[in-house]
Amino acid sequence: METRKIGEGKTKEVYSYDASHVLLKFKDSITAGDGAKADILKDKGVINAQTSAIIFRVLERNNIKTHYVGMYDERTMIAEKLSMIPVEVVLRNIATGSIVKRLPIKEGEVFEPPIIEFFLKDDSRHDPMLNYYHMEFFKLMKKNEAEKIESIMLKVNKILLDLINRMDFVLYDFKLEFGRNNNELIIGDEITLDSMRIRDKNGRILDKDLYRKGYPLDIVASSYREFLDKLSKVV
Amino acid sequence: METRKIGEGKTKEVYSYDASHVLLKFKDSITAGDGAKADILKDKGVINAQTSAIIFRVLERNNIKTHYVGMYDERTMIAEKLSMIPVEVVLRNIATGSIVKRLPIKEGEVFEPPIIEFFLKDDSRHDPMLNYYHMEFFKLMKKNEAEKIESIMLKVNKILLDLINRMDFVLYDFKLEFGRNNNELIIGDEITLDSMRIRDKNGRILDKDLYRKGYPLDIVASSYREFLDKLSKVV
Repeated sequence: METRKIGEGKTKEVYSYDASHVLLKFKDSITAGDGAKADILKDKGVINAQTSAIIFRVLERNNIKTHYVGMYDERTMIAEKLSMIPVEVVLRNIATGSIVKRLPIKEGEVFEPPIIEFFLKDDSRHDPMLNYYHMEFFKLMKKNEAEKIESIMLKVNKILLDLINRMDFVLYDFKLEFGRNNNELIIGDEITLDSMRIRDKNGRILDKDLYRKGYPLDIVASSYREFLDKLSKVV
Repeated sequence: METRKIGEGKTKEVYSYDASHVLLKFKDSITAGDGAKADILKDKGVINAQTSAIIFRVLERNNIKTHYVGMYDERTMIAEKLSMIPVEVVLRNIATGSIVKRLPIKEGEVFEPPIIEFFLKDDSRHDPMLNYYHMEFFKLMKKNEAEKIESIMLKVNKILLDLINRMDFVLYDFKLEFGRNNNELIIGDEITLDSMRIRDKNGRILDKDLYRKGYPLDIVASSYREFLDKLSKVV
């Protein structure tokens, strides 16, 4: 089969596959600060491809549409071809990260209901926050589509909370990206420790914040592996 | 009559008046950069009190609820006592200011429909942008109230566009603040060249951007006076 690279991001390469599918090859790179910090973490691509595949399968079993089709090899996902929307949609259950710097909110504050935020994928502008008006102006999505995405985010949150809770971990927040196929809004990209913030019940960090905060790379790698091992056991 | 100072902002003092009213005394101070830059502009308080009073009366004639009751003296407004919401609501017809720095939008781009944004009044955090979720979490307003405010913003915009157009000027954007009386959302604060961006048809700046950009204070003062003179003639 002939595949051709048609795109590349900070952590994934996209290859053509067939008329309605692409291949997503997860790289071993890890980055933070809009790409300002970058390293290679051996086998991270494999671990994240597997992690994301498991979580996408859990969502699909719960009738949430994702782009996941199957695995091509251990680090490469077969995915539905989507027209991706360059927006990061973040849902926060517990405050940490950018929101505690931006707003008068303390680390660890609980959001009930969760807070949902939209950010433009634009490293040079540090992913500025968007509201419905901005998204309509940029022709990213209409208000009713944003509201549809919010309802998907809340459903995904319930499923992830249950899953992460069964692992004895705590889900602080997560980020999804969406694409369209025939005007249907479908979850694309990945769901991994690069895109979720997970702590254990004692507050130990398991996710990419380890890397952001400068922990040694082997600690980051073993945490990603620990998460995948535990995830495989609970599903 | 006994009045007692009960509050003070960067450009206005608030005095108690009677059970349901306060006095708003417009100061001669002009500030920019969240208070980082500040000066005294002789008679600015009088000019802005008069400007705001005229515009509030125009809105009231168009069935838009404002806190305006009348004038106590030339720089002091009698206003309905409101429980103010510490949020700045901005409506943009033409791009300028913070939005062209934050987002990939060029100076002078036209927004049709206009863009509406909510910002938390928090100088120390440089007035961060809020979405409906943040505003619910901070108990500032519920989503349906934010949508009600958006519809008021659009109505005010039509009235201001007509007014400013009759002065042969162009309304780029404006900011309103809202308060509550018996759960009714009412426009408070002021509507002046401190809170609107106005250019003439040749692009000459008339508003507080003159001060932000470092024009001499006498240019700023004469522009504020020119605007009030012209406004008085068209209403």
